[in-house]
Amino acid sequence: MSDDIGVWFVGARGSVATTAVVGALAIRSGLAEPIGCVADLPELAVAGAPGLDRLVFGGHDVVEVPLAKRADLLAADGVLPPYLPAALATELAATDAELRPGVRAGDPDQRAQIDRIAADLSAFRERHGLARVVVVDVSSTEPPVPPDPAHESLAALDAALDAGLAPLPPSSRYAYAAFQAGCPFVAFTPSAGPRLPALAELAQNHAVPWCGSDGKTGETLIKTALAPVFASRALRVLSWSGVNLLGGGDGATLGDPTHVQSKIDSKARGLEAILGHRVDGPLHIDNVPDLGEWKTAWDHVHFAGFLGTRMTMQFTWAGCDSALAAPLVLDLVRLLARVHETGRGGPVAELAFFFKDPVATDEHRLATQVDMLVALAASLGAV
Amino acid sequence: MSDDIGVWFVGARGSVATTAVVGALAIRSGLAEPIGCVADLPELAVAGAPGLDRLVFGGHDVVEVPLAKRADLLAADGVLPPYLPAALATELAATDAELRPGVRAGDPDQRAQIDRIAADLSAFRERHGLARVVVVDVSSTEPPVPPDPAHESLAALDAALDAGLAPLPPSSRYAYAAFQAGCPFVAFTPSAGPRLPALAELAQNHAVPWCGSDGKTGETLIKTALAPVFASRALRVLSWSGVNLLGGGDGATLGDPTHVQSKIDSKARGLEAILGHRVDGPLHIDNVPDLGEWKTAWDHVHFAGFLGTRMTMQFTWAGCDSALAAPLVLDLVRLLARVHETGRGGPVAELAFFFKDPVATDEHRLATQVDMLVALAASLGAV
Amino acid sequence: MSDDIGVWFVGARGSVATTAVVGALAIRSGLAEPIGCVADLPELAVAGAPGLDRLVFGGHDVVEVPLAKRADLLAADGVLPPYLPAALATELAATDAELRPGVRAGDPDQRAQIDRIAADLSAFRERHGLARVVVVDVSSTEPPVPPDPAHESLAALDAALDAGLAPLPPSSRYAYAAFQAGCPFVAFTPSAGPRLPALAELAQNHAVPWCGSDGKTGETLIKTALAPVFASRALRVLSWSGVNLLGGGDGATLGDPTHVQSKIDSKARGLEAILGHRVDGPLHIDNVPDLGEWKTAWDHVHFAGFLGTRMTMQFTWAGCDSALAAPLVLDLVRLLARVHETGRGGPVAELAFFFKDPVATDEHRLATQVDMLVALAASLGAV
Amino acid sequence: MSDDIGVWFVGARGSVATTAVVGALAIRSGLAEPIGCVADLPELAVAGAPGLDRLVFGGHDVVEVPLAKRADLLAADGVLPPYLPAALATELAATDAELRPGVRAGDPDQRAQIDRIAADLSAFRERHGLARVVVVDVSSTEPPVPPDPAHESLAALDAALDAGLAPLPPSSRYAYAAFQAGCPFVAFTPSAGPRLPALAELAQNHAVPWCGSDGKTGETLIKTALAPVFASRALRVLSWSGVNLLGGGDGATLGDPTHVQSKIDSKARGLEAILGHRVDGPLHIDNVPDLGEWKTAWDHVHFAGFLGTRMTMQFTWAGCDSALAAPLVLDLVRLLARVHETGRGGPVAELAFFFKDPVATDEHRLATQVDMLVALAASLGAV
Repeated sequence: MSDDIGVWFVGARGSVATTAVVGALAIRSGLAEPIGCVADLPELAVAGAPGLDRLVFGGHDVVEVPLAKRADLLAADGVLPPYLPAALATELAATDAELRPGVRAGDPDQRAQIDRIAADLSAFRERHGLARVVVVDVSSTEPPVPPDPAHESLAALDAALDAGLAPLPPSSRYAYAAFQAGCPFVAFTPSAGPRLPALAELAQNHAVPWCGSDGKTGETLIKTALAPVFASRALRVLSWSGVNLLGGGDGATLGDPTHVQSKIDSKARGLEAILGHRVDGPLHIDNVPDLGEWKTAWDHVHFAGFLGTRMTMQFTWAGCDSALAAPLVLDLVRLLARVHETGRGGPVAELAFFFKDPVATDEHRLATQVDMLVALAASLGAV
Repeated sequence: MSDDIGVWFVGARGSVATTAVVGALAIRSGLAEPIGCVADLPELAVAGAPGLDRLVFGGHDVVEVPLAKRADLLAADGVLPPYLPAALATELAATDAELRPGVRAGDPDQRAQIDRIAADLSAFRERHGLARVVVVDVSSTEPPVPPDPAHESLAALDAALDAGLAPLPPSSRYAYAAFQAGCPFVAFTPSAGPRLPALAELAQNHAVPWCGSDGKTGETLIKTALAPVFASRALRVLSWSGVNLLGGGDGATLGDPTHVQSKIDSKARGLEAILGHRVDGPLHIDNVPDLGEWKTAWDHVHFAGFLGTRMTMQFTWAGCDSALAAPLVLDLVRLLARVHETGRGGPVAELAFFFKDPVATDEHRLATQVDMLVALAASLGAV
Repeated sequence: MSDDIGVWFVGARGSVATTAVVGALAIRSGLAEPIGCVADLPELAVAGAPGLDRLVFGGHDVVEVPLAKRADLLAADGVLPPYLPAALATELAATDAELRPGVRAGDPDQRAQIDRIAADLSAFRERHGLARVVVVDVSSTEPPVPPDPAHESLAALDAALDAGLAPLPPSSRYAYAAFQAGCPFVAFTPSAGPRLPALAELAQNHAVPWCGSDGKTGETLIKTALAPVFASRALRVLSWSGVNLLGGGDGATLGDPTHVQSKIDSKARGLEAILGHRVDGPLHIDNVPDLGEWKTAWDHVHFAGFLGTRMTMQFTWAGCDSALAAPLVLDLVRLLARVHETGRGGPVAELAFFFKDPVATDEHRLATQVDMLVALAASLGAV
Repeated sequence: MSDDIGVWFVGARGSVATTAVVGALAIRSGLAEPIGCVADLPELAVAGAPGLDRLVFGGHDVVEVPLAKRADLLAADGVLPPYLPAALATELAATDAELRPGVRAGDPDQRAQIDRIAADLSAFRERHGLARVVVVDVSSTEPPVPPDPAHESLAALDAALDAGLAPLPPSSRYAYAAFQAGCPFVAFTPSAGPRLPALAELAQNHAVPWCGSDGKTGETLIKTALAPVFASRALRVLSWSGVNLLGGGDGATLGDPTHVQSKIDSKARGLEAILGHRVDGPLHIDNVPDLGEWKTAWDHVHFAGFLGTRMTMQFTWAGCDSALAAPLVLDLVRLLARVHETGRGGPVAELAFFFKDPVATDEHRLATQVDMLVALAASLGAV
């Protein structure tokens, strides 16, 4: 068995996964600098997480377009430097050979599916003699999952699955399979994934660490850095309004109102937690297809200062979604692999820095999340 | 002797001092809520700083317009609620009676001036039986002070003053007088004030605490909250450009290029300290008289993310300068009075949270400054 | 009979009407300058429209709060200078005496209502010996009116009314009454008002001029000035996204989704007309109560230039709704009174400059609308 | 002799000329659509200007980097689609063969230089049997030219040149040579070029049309569309502040304070002309090298509305300088060639639409400039 770490993407042919794979390959070939790679910062490098050169990529996807083709499209949209896809053609073809067909929302026999996914994970681990495989959900956002008693305990869930019921959305089937196969899990989307009590129980049973959810890559990143300013200055935020213009696949998915609500809910939680009171103001997520992989957010903060004087702050964030998400995904894989190596299982609250809706903590203030992350790295380094 | 604390403003008829006086009177009369008053936040209230009801106001100014008149003008410009000046007419007249003529840049005999200022401070303290008097410089920004060997040690400075030389700008004469009279000093402007080695020595000799400089009220407040986001995410800031449109007295003073440089220098230091490398980009401070007491800042951040992808963030801050500064001035007086009460002298680095160019520390990250302040409050509470 | 002109507001105690009344009284008393008053620009003054000093105010409203009280609230919100309401107390009380109870959506006998409104208009005209009375709808926006065969011709409408049916929303009842009483009508809201074929027929029969609809006061004003830039430079607008944050009554009304749609429809029409093709992009109108009388709009334009290069423009408009609308209302009254005086009836397309959804024309380009208005003024001056 | 038109660029290897050449070649090969090409709009096509397929390119430059190399760099910066330079390699090499060494500021014998330039122009015309050659100055902005009596008349200028003096900046030497050789001239930069009385006289003598100056491509384009909004609504602009962040060569040239002033002067003239009064507010042009070929402008407009209520508008324009300028350059060549063909000489005020500082007119309002241009096209079409 090698020291290598498997990275298994759910949504392996999507923009985030493709960018992460191309980026990791480029950086370890010296074709690009590790900009945006948090795990290499000195205060986090002490964790002793595995390097990018130790990652082996695989994954599931429901579409079949070759990775090289996806990379070309991302280059045309300005996400990847134009020369990279050709320079990495061999490596991308090798990764392509590790990808397997994904599961779909409507598939009937969930128990069989879970077993098939788990088998794919185990086979990948054995085929490459990997120390461990970290599963990362970067597939399209699912609609919110309706409440179901089968979610409340592992026993209830197993009974439902054994009875041929279909209680789990795809993201949660992947989480179940990952935990069953002893694989750490990163929930990078707002989908339910491992965030059902039954699955948390399963992760605990298998001593597998997991983290999530919903990568904090743009508007919320800035919001959770700015909201504490108002709190620490005793300024009263009267309303915080925001609009997110998204192109690409994310925009299309979130253009569907049933999908958007889970993202909006996830975004709204943080502000109230930071300011200590409910804050009004609209929050829109809109599909603007011509923006491609780019997204633009505008936020408007109306606040009262001394003697009630009204003031405003507004910001515009214009970023490339996949380029923002991809390095975080790589960081999470590396850090979570290290957590796993130390024998720790269950939700890792100290990774809240990466997420809009962090598990096992209500801490949304970015700077405090940095402190938590640095402390985690120190403790991992001390093992 | 009472428990009351004197607040002595240098620039007592200016917008910041007038807003602070009106605000403190209004809040303690129940006419306004303490929005923007940091010292009352639970994590800082543990310091045991004196309440607003224990403050007695006085000060120097080179102009003679009555405080009530200044308050009316601020109300007309939307800085103060229209009903407040009339409601506080009696208290404002009483404060007016405590104001004394200030010193001017060109006055010849600096030693005599210093003695006169110190005598004004002592008389104020005795007249009201005050526990202590905190001096706060909120006068107009001075041009940068040219290097002078007399600034380097107290002995050299005293020799120069005794020889009838004029080595000190007005702000530093006030600081000298304050320390001589045993008064803590808040340098709220970027003027030299107490920030000359000779004066730091004097403060140490008299065991008087002081802090500064240049209140962090707008663009820099946001900048020092946002710049750490880029650092913690390993994003590369390529340029950070900013423009500050200021009306009012501050705009007029800073419209003069010899004055603006000290403010720009003070603003630029923080970014490099936070990001760990020099960042290019213009920084403008412009006088736009029609903005009155309001200021608008626009910042544009150009940065590279994963694989070098270029992205931007921009923000616009539209605030009322005096309303932002006034509560901080009151907080600083209260906290510095408490520091003095505990017997501590010298520069108080833990008050960096309030300043663009903090003394005795290179820490510019807002969230870390909050941590330092909370720790100071805890230690003051433990005395 | 005097040369005076009656101004009859539907929604007479609302923010727009109150601001218009206070403003007109203030300007003619020399208490304020006529900023924002278009009819006094040299190129329009040639029309010979009546001056502000010839206007007499009255109106209907469903609420009963005194005008003076409304004026105080607007002053507290920064819409009116604080000293004005008191200075105009006598005149405001006199106007108050001219206000009558308005009709409500659910009132049953529409024919009787119309007759009562028309009687109020005639009585007002006679009581003051007015040359004419112009009716202005500045009441809350109504939900879109469902199609009804009774709207299609005057005969059908009269038959429905005589049969005791209730085919008309309140705004259209006011329009019917105005035309019946020979009064010109300004539809300043997006409500149906006179924009039903049956009512257009009635206006023609009575030779009464009318105009509308939906005052162009903010985002759309800028949009119809900017969109022609892209057209004239052959740049391709890919998407135009907009968000409108509104406080005050307008925000509350438009927060109701059934009301907002008529406003959004009215806003969207112009862009397609100017650019010659459908443009995607979300358009939001949100109720943000803490903004009070103020509104902020943010627009984001994504466009392709030479060789397909992608670029963006964004703007933020922060304005006071009533202060933007009130002078236009006065201008419209004066110009429409002059049109009436020359004997012209029917829709006045040349007033498109003032409206988001102009009647009898598809011209939305602001500069071209200015040309149309100047030509109208010249022709009115030549009569 | 063919019907073909020569296009002679001063600054032929710069970003604007390279983009114009690549773009014209791409469009006529069907590799790109004519986005941004104004002369093809129906209302201007009536002028009968020559098509892009009739243009032959040549020019001067002081640098020697091959056009294909420049095109590659522009593609890497996102100005040109990545596939274009390779697809047009043959045509670019052919154009390269037409480029000649340019003149420099310090060269001593100006008369000889002028003669050499004129000879280059004539040789180009004869070599290709061109109907005419239009010279376009797209070289770097020069510092403002000091007043010189030799500029005031052609006689004085010729005397100075014959006396071996050096009265002309490079741009004016090119203009002299163009007029001497009977070539129309487009002054696309703010440099003096043909805008000296002596050169205007020369153009008149040779019956050669010319136009300028300083292409209106970004902030000023928007400004001259927006400022008329305030004028037509009788709103009072209190200040208009602007900051322009430029990368690339233009940024570097304008970073030099002696160069920037001519650009700022040219930008400021329009606002006063449109609003009818002087408007305060800073106007900055800054060199921000990391922006590359991109520029971002932020403008802040502070204005008073009805009863003096203060409001603001701000906009951010993020564009690609060369992509904005290149199609205008092609349009100007085609339209000016057509003007020349009709026998008209002297300054062409009707092309003001394209310029920040238009010759022979004070009309800065964009919409009115469009009307002037459409009228010119109609008159050219009628010849």
